[in-house]
Amino acid sequence: MVKYPNKKKVTHLCLQPLKGESRHYTAYRGMNLEEDINLSNSYYLENDIAVIYKKPIPVQIVKVDYPKRSAAKIVEAYYRKPSTTDYNGLYKGKYVDFEAKETKVDNFPFKNISDHQIRHLDRVIHHGGIAFLIIAFTSINEVYLIDASYIVDRYCHASKKSISYEEIKQLGHLIKQGFQPRLDYLKILDEFYLKEDS
Amino acid sequence: MVKYPNKKKVTHLCLQPLKGESRHYTAYRGMNLEEDINLSNSYYLENDIAVIYKKPIPVQIVKVDYPKRSAAKIVEAYYRKPSTTDYNGLYKGKYVDFEAKETKVDNFPFKNISDHQIRHLDRVIHHGGIAFLIIAFTSINEVYLIDASYIVDRYCHASKKSISYEEIKQLGHLIKQGFQPRLDYLKILDEFYLKEDS
Repeated sequence: MVKYPNKKKVTHLCLQPLKGESRHYTAYRGMNLEEDINLSNSYYLENDIAVIYKKPIPVQIVKVDYPKRSAAKIVEAYYRKPSTTDYNGLYKGKYVDFEAKETKVDNFPFKNISDHQIRHLDRVIHHGGIAFLIIAFTSINEVYLIDASYIVDRYCHASKKSISYEEIKQLGHLIKQGFQPRLDYLKILDEFYLKEDS
Repeated sequence: MVKYPNKKKVTHLCLQPLKGESRHYTAYRGMNLEEDINLSNSYYLENDIAVIYKKPIPVQIVKVDYPKRSAAKIVEAYYRKPSTTDYNGLYKGKYVDFEAKETKVDNFPFKNISDHQIRHLDRVIHHGGIAFLIIAFTSINEVYLIDASYIVDRYCHASKKSISYEEIKQLGHLIKQGFQPRLDYLKILDEFYLKEDS
């Protein structure tokens, strides 16, 4: 078990928790990586453990209607390719940045990650941040955290266009699944990235 | 002048610069804070100085059309209130987080910032990140960086619903405007936040 400091809700600010900021956690209902990470991040946020968010989906807005007496309505927009990863934030004073991917097969195909994202992860490493991927093998219900350096290296230099389950298991770390948080990936950071600090 | 290491383009990655990633900088054409910060961030990114991005605008997507042989088209969506600030990233190993605001008057009215954003900035401070506001006084063309702690404190405890130009001038730091980068706000971080590191 992770022994987080026995903190109650954040008390260092004048503001009371906002309505709707508190989330209800549902019982386990199978793998949905994005939702599981979002729930874990909400848990970390509400318990004052870390400040990590999913970035909004990048959208190119083309046309907006302004109906009288109601909210502006976007009526034409297109998805844009993200230039960075889905998640970033702050944990114990460290910049944390990662991408989360599901795979149904027994490897992680590099076609599931873009040049932009590889480049971004490499930059994060280079500038002293913590960069990794969270990869869920949905058929066996296992989720791994693997340092981005392995993925960047293989993406750039390997002849194979994927990294196998076996390699991820060997180089990465299995993330414990539980009730709260659903995916305790920060525990891996405590053990393998921040050990000298704790 | 900031003495950045005399680096050329990033060479630590197999990938070549992507098309369109390089930006052309236009001559000075008056104050547009968001664009100026975006150009500065592009400059920092391309010169391997920092990895700081504006987050996408949060949008609630309601309806998407999938026309044959062309890109998915979002036909109904609404703006959502951001739960965090506009910008975050990584500089010299530090997590950096800020909000940028223009004001036409001689103060910064707190109605221009949301409870959510104040709460987020406070959390960033609490977890060891660097949090600040960039405030542009458009009528006099001056741009200041002010530590978020002052804003959080006044937002929570002051009876006045704004912070004056004079106070911002006294507590904050004037950002040098130039050609490249347009707004060299990282220079302030070097001088006042990271001095012991350099």
